[in-house]
Formats: sequence, structure tokens, C-alpha cells
Amino acid sequence: MARSPATTEDGRRIGAGVDAVVFDVFGTVVDWRTGVASEFQRVGSRVGAQADWPGLTTQWRSLYPPTLLRVVSGEVPWRSLDELHRMTLDTVLAEHGLSGFTDTDRAELVGAWHRLSPWPDSRDGLARLRETHVTATLSNGSTALLIRLARAGGLPFDTILSAELIHSYKPDPKVYLMAAELLEVAPRRLLMTACHLDDLRAAADAGLRTAYIPRPLEWGPDHPAPPAPDWVDLIATDIPDLARQLTP
Amino acid sequence: MARSPATTEDGRRIGAGVDAVVFDVFGTVVDWRTGVASEFQRVGSRVGAQADWPGLTTQWRSLYPPTLLRVVSGEVPWRSLDELHRMTLDTVLAEHGLSGFTDTDRAELVGAWHRLSPWPDSRDGLARLRETHVTATLSNGSTALLIRLARAGGLPFDTILSAELIHSYKPDPKVYLMAAELLEVAPRRLLMTACHLDDLRAAADAGLRTAYIPRPLEWGPDHPAPPAPDWVDLIATDIPDLARQLTP
Repeated sequence: MARSPATTEDGRRIGAGVDAVVFDVFGTVVDWRTGVASEFQRVGSRVGAQADWPGLTTQWRSLYPPTLLRVVSGEVPWRSLDELHRMTLDTVLAEHGLSGFTDTDRAELVGAWHRLSPWPDSRDGLARLRETHVTATLSNGSTALLIRLARAGGLPFDTILSAELIHSYKPDPKVYLMAAELLEVAPRRLLMTACHLDDLRAAADAGLRTAYIPRPLEWGPDHPAPPAPDWVDLIATDIPDLARQLTP
Repeated sequence: MARSPATTEDGRRIGAGVDAVVFDVFGTVVDWRTGVASEFQRVGSRVGAQADWPGLTTQWRSLYPPTLLRVVSGEVPWRSLDELHRMTLDTVLAEHGLSGFTDTDRAELVGAWHRLSPWPDSRDGLARLRETHVTATLSNGSTALLIRLARAGGLPFDTILSAELIHSYKPDPKVYLMAAELLEVAPRRLLMTACHLDDLRAAADAGLRTAYIPRPLEWGPDHPAPPAPDWVDLIATDIPDLARQLTP
């Protein structure tokens, strides 16, 4: 699946032209679908509720992009991701008539996003990549949330970058440019890595390089990952494959 | 030298009341004095200049606090630490009639602050502390500079926090409160660790806990570290000692 060797427009290998790699986290580095669905199941059982928990998980997540876009457009003021997750959770539960969840139950479900496990390859892939490149998160999760995921999963990033730092969210171009500025690299020498093409498209529009990891389980059991479009700089099957392609 | 066991006002051990530990870097984690003086010596030799390089190092550093205070007070607009270092370097060189340093030479000296070695205990102490506590830098160095120091020295922080994130500098109370906010801990559960009492005093005034590591070589060969004042919550001889005192 990977183009090899990955090259820039002027024919150099991408790896030689990239100084730092930033990662989307939910879906790209950690598996939100399994983690959130199992927490729904656990808390739901305790509450005595029955529902299609994997379906509710998908629905909860589907409210995420439009909610963030309303913040990015300025339609609603910036709120933390936990607050936005709580609002959209309330919407999902209400829609299914699941009124038995207390505030504590709901807070526990919002907290599920702080307790997600990495994909099996993430830890080793990041460790390998970090030997040659500066690595960081670039996520809509908060700094504290990302630190929790990194500590629990042993994910060796050089630093944690969150859209929270400028009180915005991806796909705001300012988020991608903030990463380039803080890492002191030119946008074209910064590689955004994600399993979501809208994230990569926004990064490309902001002038970054892009790497697509089409995580097979990201879209649920019945939906394959979208095919890679032409404008993606690099495609990798997983993070170790990305590290291999970027190694000089 | 360390009080043991370190306790909070209500008699609990400090370690039990602290969720995260942030570190001053220049002097507390890395040895700026040796690193900068040796770069002065190296670049100075190349230029053919002679001077008391350790003395110039001390003088360069002595211009740092008043320069930052002018930024914090709003007297001058925020500039990156590299830019401020360049301005103060020009002042020091001019004062000693050392006009032979080109722009490249000066940039190399400013870059010396990106290439400092840790104190011998820093790496192991941070690794040990990180097992029980969230750890981060809280420095006036830029994010990129701090990442370079951490990578070169193998310093295992959970994340890099820089005053740059809010375009200010310590001792601005906003810098300490930013760390608490991003780490999602109450200020009184955040421990600021430094070898400089002005840094710790400002952290305490902002509501943080404080740990003093009186680095013996920080003040030059002829000046011992200042004695610990009463208001410091904790005193440690080095970072492993701090880790020991904070371990439940």
C-alpha cells in the first residue's frame, strides 16, 4: 500500500525533507471506538440500561466534527473538549430516551476518552520514529488528557501539543501553524499524520506535509478506510511503516 | 539538608498532596554555566578574541532577569528568548570591545543555550519521579529549545511547557497558573522545582507548592547557593532526592 520511496516534488525522499512529525491521536494512535463502547457497556449495565452501545459510540463520535466546526467558525465560544463531549453525550442519551444516567455516570463516560488504549503498533512505532525525528501529538484532546493517554500507553512523544493551546480545534489552520511555530520548523518540513482525510486536507492547506495511515478499524466493522487521495504525500500501513519510510 | 518527611500545613506528606511536578530548566536541570562558557571559549578562539569567558558568561546571564522583567511588566513587547539573548549578548560584547564577532558567531553563541548538558543526576531522577508523578518543564526557554535539551540529554518529561505558550516569562504569575490549567491540577497540587528562589517565590505567590534544589555550581565557583528560606515547602539535594521525598 505504501509508495516507496516517498518523494517530495523535487524528487527527494520525504524523510529527508521532514524535521518533525505530529500525530492526530483519536483513531490514529489510540482506538477510541473499542474503548468508548466498552465504557458505554460497563456504565450502561450499572445503570440498568440497554442499548446498541457500539451504535451509540458511533453516533456520539459523529457529533464531534460539526460541534468542533461551530467552535472554529466562532459560532459558539471555545469550550474544553470534555465540555463538548458532555454536551454531545447528553444529546445522544436524550435521543435514545436514556435518562437514567446521573451526572457521575456521564462524567465517567466523558472520562472514557482519557482512558483509551493505543493501537498495538503505536508504542514501538513512535519509539522508532523518535530516534530520527521530533515527534508530538497534534490533537483536539486537551493537554492533560493527552498526557494521560501517553503515560498509560507508554507513548514516547517529545511533547504534547493540543489545539487547546490556542483555544481552537482542528481543522482550524491556526492549529497546524501553531505546531510549526512551536517546533520551530517550516510548515513544509512538518509532517501531519492522521487516519482522517479531513484532518490531512486541512493540514495540507496550511502548508504541512501529510501522511495517511488508513486504520482498518477506525470506521467500524462494516466500513473500510477511505482510499488515499492523490494529494497525500505519504501512505503508511501503521506507525512502524511510517518510521521505516521516513528513515534516511 | 532535606527536611524529612516533607509535610503540608495539615501534616500530610507533600508527596501525597502533589499531582504534578514542573521544573525550571536552566540551572535546575541543565548546567548553563559550563556549556555557555565553553562555547564562548570555542567561538572566541576562532574569532581570535581573548576575554574572561566565564566572567562574560556570568555577565550575560545577569542581564537575563531584568530583561525578562521588562517584558513581563509590558515595558517592551514580547520577544523570543533567542532574540532577547541576542540583544543582551550584543550588549556584553560591546561593553568589552569585542567587535570581531560576526552575526554567525553571535547566532552560534545564542544557540549554545540549545545545547546544554544536564546535571549528572537529572536524567535518572526525572525517570524515577515520572513513575509516580506527571512531570513537565516550566521554563523561559522556548518549546523547541527545551525539546532539543530533553532529546539530547534523554530527559523524560511528560510534556514540555514554556512561558512562550502565553508570550510571557517567569516570574509572571500567569505562567505558573498556565501550567496548573494545562495539567488540570489545582495550583496547590502542583510543585514548582527550581534552584532559584525568585522563581520559587513567584510560584508560591501564585499558589503553587515549591521545591528548592540548591545546585552548588549554579552561582559560580566562588558563591555558594543561597540558604533555603522558611517558606519553601521542600528542599532536595538533587532530583533523585526529590523523587525519594515525593514517593508515597
